[in-house]
Amino acid sequence: MSLSPFEHPFLVGLFGDAEISALFGAEADVQAMLRFEMALAEAEAAVGFIPEPHAARIVGAIATVSIDYGALRDGVSKDGVVIPELVRQLRAAVGADATASVHFGATSQDVIDTSLMLRLKVAAEILQRRLSGCIAGLENVGARDGSKALMGHTRMQAAIPITVEDRLASWRHPLIRHHGRLASFGQTGFCLQFGGAAGSLEKFGAKGAEVRAELARRLELADTPQWHSQRDGIVEFGNILSLITGSLGKIGQDVALLAQSGQEIRLSGGGGSSAMPHKQNPVLAETLVTLARFNAVQISALHQSMVHEQERSGSAWMLEWLLLPQMVVATGTALQIADRLLGQVQVLGA
Amino acid sequence: MSLSPFEHPFLVGLFGDAEISALFGAEADVQAMLRFEMALAEAEAAVGFIPEPHAARIVGAIATVSIDYGALRDGVSKDGVVIPELVRQLRAAVGADATASVHFGATSQDVIDTSLMLRLKVAAEILQRRLSGCIAGLENVGARDGSKALMGHTRMQAAIPITVEDRLASWRHPLIRHHGRLASFGQTGFCLQFGGAAGSLEKFGAKGAEVRAELARRLELADTPQWHSQRDGIVEFGNILSLITGSLGKIGQDVALLAQSGQEIRLSGGGGSSAMPHKQNPVLAETLVTLARFNAVQISALHQSMVHEQERSGSAWMLEWLLLPQMVVATGTALQIADRLLGQVQVLGA
Amino acid sequence: MSLSPFEHPFLVGLFGDAEISALFGAEADVQAMLRFEMALAEAEAAVGFIPEPHAARIVGAIATVSIDYGALRDGVSKDGVVIPELVRQLRAAVGADATASVHFGATSQDVIDTSLMLRLKVAAEILQRRLSGCIAGLENVGARDGSKALMGHTRMQAAIPITVEDRLASWRHPLIRHHGRLASFGQTGFCLQFGGAAGSLEKFGAKGAEVRAELARRLELADTPQWHSQRDGIVEFGNILSLITGSLGKIGQDVALLAQSGQEIRLSGGGGSSAMPHKQNPVLAETLVTLARFNAVQISALHQSMVHEQERSGSAWMLEWLLLPQMVVATGTALQIADRLLGQVQVLGA
Amino acid sequence: MSLSPFEHPFLVGLFGDAEISALFGAEADVQAMLRFEMALAEAEAAVGFIPEPHAARIVGAIATVSIDYGALRDGVSKDGVVIPELVRQLRAAVGADATASVHFGATSQDVIDTSLMLRLKVAAEILQRRLSGCIAGLENVGARDGSKALMGHTRMQAAIPITVEDRLASWRHPLIRHHGRLASFGQTGFCLQFGGAAGSLEKFGAKGAEVRAELARRLELADTPQWHSQRDGIVEFGNILSLITGSLGKIGQDVALLAQSGQEIRLSGGGGSSAMPHKQNPVLAETLVTLARFNAVQISALHQSMVHEQERSGSAWMLEWLLLPQMVVATGTALQIADRLLGQVQVLGA
Repeated sequence: MSLSPFEHPFLVGLFGDAEISALFGAEADVQAMLRFEMALAEAEAAVGFIPEPHAARIVGAIATVSIDYGALRDGVSKDGVVIPELVRQLRAAVGADATASVHFGATSQDVIDTSLMLRLKVAAEILQRRLSGCIAGLENVGARDGSKALMGHTRMQAAIPITVEDRLASWRHPLIRHHGRLASFGQTGFCLQFGGAAGSLEKFGAKGAEVRAELARRLELADTPQWHSQRDGIVEFGNILSLITGSLGKIGQDVALLAQSGQEIRLSGGGGSSAMPHKQNPVLAETLVTLARFNAVQISALHQSMVHEQERSGSAWMLEWLLLPQMVVATGTALQIADRLLGQVQVLGA
Repeated sequence: MSLSPFEHPFLVGLFGDAEISALFGAEADVQAMLRFEMALAEAEAAVGFIPEPHAARIVGAIATVSIDYGALRDGVSKDGVVIPELVRQLRAAVGADATASVHFGATSQDVIDTSLMLRLKVAAEILQRRLSGCIAGLENVGARDGSKALMGHTRMQAAIPITVEDRLASWRHPLIRHHGRLASFGQTGFCLQFGGAAGSLEKFGAKGAEVRAELARRLELADTPQWHSQRDGIVEFGNILSLITGSLGKIGQDVALLAQSGQEIRLSGGGGSSAMPHKQNPVLAETLVTLARFNAVQISALHQSMVHEQERSGSAWMLEWLLLPQMVVATGTALQIADRLLGQVQVLGA
Repeated sequence: MSLSPFEHPFLVGLFGDAEISALFGAEADVQAMLRFEMALAEAEAAVGFIPEPHAARIVGAIATVSIDYGALRDGVSKDGVVIPELVRQLRAAVGADATASVHFGATSQDVIDTSLMLRLKVAAEILQRRLSGCIAGLENVGARDGSKALMGHTRMQAAIPITVEDRLASWRHPLIRHHGRLASFGQTGFCLQFGGAAGSLEKFGAKGAEVRAELARRLELADTPQWHSQRDGIVEFGNILSLITGSLGKIGQDVALLAQSGQEIRLSGGGGSSAMPHKQNPVLAETLVTLARFNAVQISALHQSMVHEQERSGSAWMLEWLLLPQMVVATGTALQIADRLLGQVQVLGA
Repeated sequence: MSLSPFEHPFLVGLFGDAEISALFGAEADVQAMLRFEMALAEAEAAVGFIPEPHAARIVGAIATVSIDYGALRDGVSKDGVVIPELVRQLRAAVGADATASVHFGATSQDVIDTSLMLRLKVAAEILQRRLSGCIAGLENVGARDGSKALMGHTRMQAAIPITVEDRLASWRHPLIRHHGRLASFGQTGFCLQFGGAAGSLEKFGAKGAEVRAELARRLELADTPQWHSQRDGIVEFGNILSLITGSLGKIGQDVALLAQSGQEIRLSGGGGSSAMPHKQNPVLAETLVTLARFNAVQISALHQSMVHEQERSGSAWMLEWLLLPQMVVATGTALQIADRLLGQVQVLGA
């Protein structure tokens, strides 16, 4: 066992999702944060809070800045968040007379939460695309085997015969609903976070909402009042992730049970055993169950994080950091595995 | 400590919610199950699967049947579900030649899940009403104290002054969203479950969907294909419950922190101490935190239940029984407590 | 679905454990609290903090007091704990000049936690006895069928033949270890809680430890410094409960899988179906899985409760109330069900 | 937010534990697996199952083998476990006539679980050493400030004055108990896993236990019958981890509450804010709460994994992989942070 199977030299062979993991690497995070700071400068210049030349200079400097990651690490060690040190580096890059215009009126959480949203939005698109792929994969199996017979099982006992399509429908319908959930979430759920020191955008007087709208527009995120101590959107998104892996886990469990007797399914490419060369382990099916139970546990922590004290809870907020990116990757991985698994189904039913 | 504080001789003083608990008592469950069986007979007669006189006799018999709860208990002990024995009692009440028309084409899960849905629907209406009450309560505090000053706190430290309204908005906005979530769920979420032995309504040939639509109409539930092994709707509802208690837990935590120094809040009616008569414990605020953490844990089990094998998983399904009703009551209780707590706030801010 | 299957008119047929549930009823709780208050008076008289005649009068009055449960409920509603009202009733029963000697130097948590420990101790003895019964039941199956062949399965696939005894050993060994864990916990784990208002036994000066030792001796509990904000002992006990149900859940899962093909096990008395009279559902096996997953979720909340602020956290403490008694009953029920299930195994292996 | 804060370019500044993380890197895992294979060959030669020259050749070849990690990754992708490919590489290195002696009689889980145990044993020693450090740190604070006054707080309200030593004792005593728990676990808990294909050591006839004892002795692990489907030891260890972080979380919560009013504690080196330069955020204290809640959630999954079907459950076993290493690192990190935090306490009490 090794630290994180999601980004491990060899366990990524099973658990890895390079496309989504890249969104949650340090580099992508920093890029999204820089994008926030550039858009912030532009928005503030547009509304008149910082001089236009400052904004131009900030955008130019950030576009070419070389970030010192070691210093970021030391900053996190001291401050608990990366932003004070990142802003220090940006100010140094921008130069003396515009430094006060960098990160003006913003706070750490504005940058970190918005960076998260920018990347969750891309992740959600990937997940939706993969959901569509799985749904199509199930439809393909149905087109080929749907009218075949399958023994229906209730409470772990043979019940009455059903068709393969009956079973496939119970796998496919939830995925279709989850696709709809992601689409619906996407309409308003990927929100700019912008509140300033304590959420009141106190540096902007009556024009806070205007700056915020400008910033949201530039970042192509939904414009809502700050939500830094209101984490229901995060939980809502996490809930969809765990619904997806839960439904895929059901498919995995069903396939593993079918493979156990082996009379109603033929799978290619099962996993080999070091002790029993004859075996074909339904590794992908099992992994779907694992990932379902993984997310089903992690989701609890997101709900715990809703007890978020006052204007910003460091402890509740950091708990999300430890969980949410891995939940997204677990979901992405599960969708890829489901796709591979469906491709291994040579025959379903009898 | 005693078995379930939600239905305990004296702990109900704090944790009880008589209105919602009544929905999850055995009596209400049986009544909803009987309602299912009556509507089923009527629907099947309407579509032509059982004779109209049978339906009339079933409705008449069920309307006056006296249920033997001891026999139900013995039936559960043997069968794991109450329906075989309940149906036996109904058939005995209906009498010989119509007995085969009782529960025709249905299975245990159809009755139990539909009974749940009938009662969740009522519970959701109660929760929505109470959410509106809390939102109004917060608005009242805001109307009185909203312009007062409050020290904003981030990461457990005084930050900059905000207004009471700033804080109240962070309490109120999530509740407004949760109200919307319940309303949205209510449009299609309270669904008839009707699938027969293994989900295929095999007794009704091509007319399964027609019978199901008739039944749904009579029960005023949404008509969807059977979902007995697709539990995402249950999890979705549970997620909203835990979102509600989570947001109320944040209010509770904030109030307890305000009450600690006591300079920015004045609360009436705190809890007395057996050792320190001078104390005024913020019992209601603490209880909101407790209920938030309770639901945040239970929700994990609902997600685990999505790994639901084949056409019906006894083990995954029964896990819901142990959790969901208590989650609903915890949510109802939390809303009542929040309402009481807001009524105790004599002054907020300075 | 109904409120708590553990104490429900008909679901107790499957989930009920009358013997352990009785320990967590309101009546047993009150009796244990009264026992605390009597022993406290005697211990304080022995060390010289209250007059001997007061102790005698307290013991006499409590022995015959009639508790007003409705008033307790109202007290809980106001104070969040039952003790202020209970002590008020006891003082009224004891009469004027000795009233100050009732509950002298104690606080609510002393009474409630100690009442819990008195009852957990009895529950643990019951669980140990039942574990021994299950171990013996497994030995009996082994004596009869142990040398028969069983197909070993790894990763949901037939692997190589093993003996029935191989499988039985994997079921029995953990139970033996859990028995040892309970025995080991019992040596020091059932502790008196006695700390007074804030844990320092401030009413007793240098003699606090002496009073505590006297009280522990009378209650036959281990004597340790107060632990009211140190909940590791509670979690440790909860962990054993969930280990027990986890190991029984593995047995249940294995039996359900054996029963699925049915070629290597013969079970009597399976559950009937309302739709398929031919079925014999492995209800007891499934229920073991359910109870394992139930406790596996609840244990998370006990760990959350360790973040227990200052000298006493109402919110963390109350969370235990909502969970721990049901965890004990779930464990007791699982042991009873395992015992029933083993009795249904007519043949294991081939 | 980025993938795993425990091994992230800059978040490791707060969350990293280089010493323990190294134990769970791929390199350390492979080294421990190779150690298993070498000791296995030696033990089997000693008992007479493989020729001594084969053992010598295996040991020699493994000592100098260069592992192809890319091929391991591809192997994991196909087999779900790394061992078939790793053994293939070892066999290639050892050469033709001794290849059958490599990994003889063992299976994937033997290697992976034993590798885990070898590394958990080292991790436990580190944790014990750090626990001792924290206990000493608390004693130092006590020696300096123990007799000072502190306002005792119960239920988030000032109660009665206590001493700093009273509070420190409630922080220190659980850590002392956890140290004892780790020591006690260490006596028998770090066990060799060796069972062969399905746990029966079928390749060794009556001498299975002898080979196992030889192997355990060489690896300095406890010798017990195989436990591949009995995960109570893993859960027991995980429980101790979460107890440790839970108790540290209580310290963190208390420090954060003390720092909020700031009158009874003086902390150096708080975290800076990008928006409010005057702030000194109690980052380390908050992080202790975060890590407590993290482990309190993860522990649930370990309990879920006890429902481990048949002789080996791929899905339950892999779930441990996703959690346990991060739990160990979270615990190691929390102990380091607690040590730093105690060093920041300049004065406690008044």
